[in-house]
Amino acid sequence: MASLKMSISVIGSGNVAWHLTKRLFACGYLIDCVFSRNPDNARALAEQVKSKAVDTIAMLPLSDLYIISVKDDAYQEVIASFPKTTAICVHTSGSSEMKILENLSDNYGVVYPFQSFSKNKIVDFENVPVCIEASNPQVESLLITLANELSPITCLLNTEQRMHLHLAGVFASNFSNGMYVIAQQILQKENIDFKIALPLINETAEKVNSLFPIDAQTGPAIRNDINIMNKHIRMMEDEDWKELYRLISKIIQKQQHIL
Amino acid sequence: MASLKMSISVIGSGNVAWHLTKRLFACGYLIDCVFSRNPDNARALAEQVKSKAVDTIAMLPLSDLYIISVKDDAYQEVIASFPKTTAICVHTSGSSEMKILENLSDNYGVVYPFQSFSKNKIVDFENVPVCIEASNPQVESLLITLANELSPITCLLNTEQRMHLHLAGVFASNFSNGMYVIAQQILQKENIDFKIALPLINETAEKVNSLFPIDAQTGPAIRNDINIMNKHIRMMEDEDWKELYRLISKIIQKQQHIL
Repeated sequence: MASLKMSISVIGSGNVAWHLTKRLFACGYLIDCVFSRNPDNARALAEQVKSKAVDTIAMLPLSDLYIISVKDDAYQEVIASFPKTTAICVHTSGSSEMKILENLSDNYGVVYPFQSFSKNKIVDFENVPVCIEASNPQVESLLITLANELSPITCLLNTEQRMHLHLAGVFASNFSNGMYVIAQQILQKENIDFKIALPLINETAEKVNSLFPIDAQTGPAIRNDINIMNKHIRMMEDEDWKELYRLISKIIQKQQHIL
Repeated sequence: MASLKMSISVIGSGNVAWHLTKRLFACGYLIDCVFSRNPDNARALAEQVKSKAVDTIAMLPLSDLYIISVKDDAYQEVIASFPKTTAICVHTSGSSEMKILENLSDNYGVVYPFQSFSKNKIVDFENVPVCIEASNPQVESLLITLANELSPITCLLNTEQRMHLHLAGVFASNFSNGMYVIAQQILQKENIDFKIALPLINETAEKVNSLFPIDAQTGPAIRNDINIMNKHIRMMEDEDWKELYRLISKIIQKQQHIL
């Protein structure tokens, strides 16, 4: 006899809740119910997964698993209004401790998908590492089973590790995108199409799939080419950009033991 | 009758000279000769393109086109020892003015491949934009023909534009790789395999192939999530990283008109 899958209620309807819930539904999980502070979003998500939306947390039905996937500053409010349960309660945040759930249930944990989600962009869960933390071995075992269905890339991380993974993601993704924005703004001023930078951006990301980033570094800083670095700094008007150029160049030189 | 291709001599044997010369040879150009300050490298490159190496610039034969592709700080020395010619002389540098060649020939220009090259990594010229500048319309026409053979992505850029493209490349490539290095160092300290960050890095680069980077921005800075930003800054020990986190977050907030 096949083992029964857990039934799930979802609290939240943001980017993570949206894609995770749809993926769980696609993996055959029954989505009992969706609650969100934004009732329209809750209904929209519920429709996607043949479920229903409720207007308050108190109206949530009994489920085996409650997934709380809200903005970091909204967890406190959700947790305060959540009834004590024996079901499993998990959150999906990279930067919140697992312990914030300890008063909801003895069975709690974290399911943290480490990827950048946008509602209007299809997510391929083949490329979404899912990180698990659990309050006890039984919950851990259930969450690992669930994670393995969601994605081929799963791992166990404690709170400290998960928070550092989130921080690393800010550098690797949010901040490198910030670099792309500056590049785009430099090109725009010279009437150069940003598209010309795409092959270089793609190659730079692609390289670290086979080389450690420390071994893939190129550019004026690693060559300590002071003439070019000074020329570049003079070319910019924005004082923050100048400061950023100096600071990253210094960090790159320290990484490479040039400084 | 098919038009004859220009014969080419190459000065330099670094990453750009290496891949560009091999590509020209593959496109059917005759490589007359290779000269480099490093004779072993010159011979190695000459061998790759069925050519010969010479030991001094004075020994270079007559060619239709001389490609000078050396480190930025070596151009002056090469140019000083180069005999005046009627042939076309080009350099390959993003950050040097075209005018540095004006005393060598009346026919000069720039062939700037905008990509990150490593000798031990195969380059797919389908993904190498080639930027052209020329001293007169005849040279421009010849260099455009050559560029179109090298790559499907070509463009005309003046010196000012090319230098800004190079600067944009430093941000988009060198500095985003610097972000990857920091991410890797954060993960290493927590015994987390850097591989877990690759799907996010790939997705972040992939996104700007279809969205403008300004519209692809995510993360705590754009949400002005001060709690998380302060938590992240407290998690780091390196003062330069703390400063970098604050500065990029400020720049991202200015880009998004949050500040």
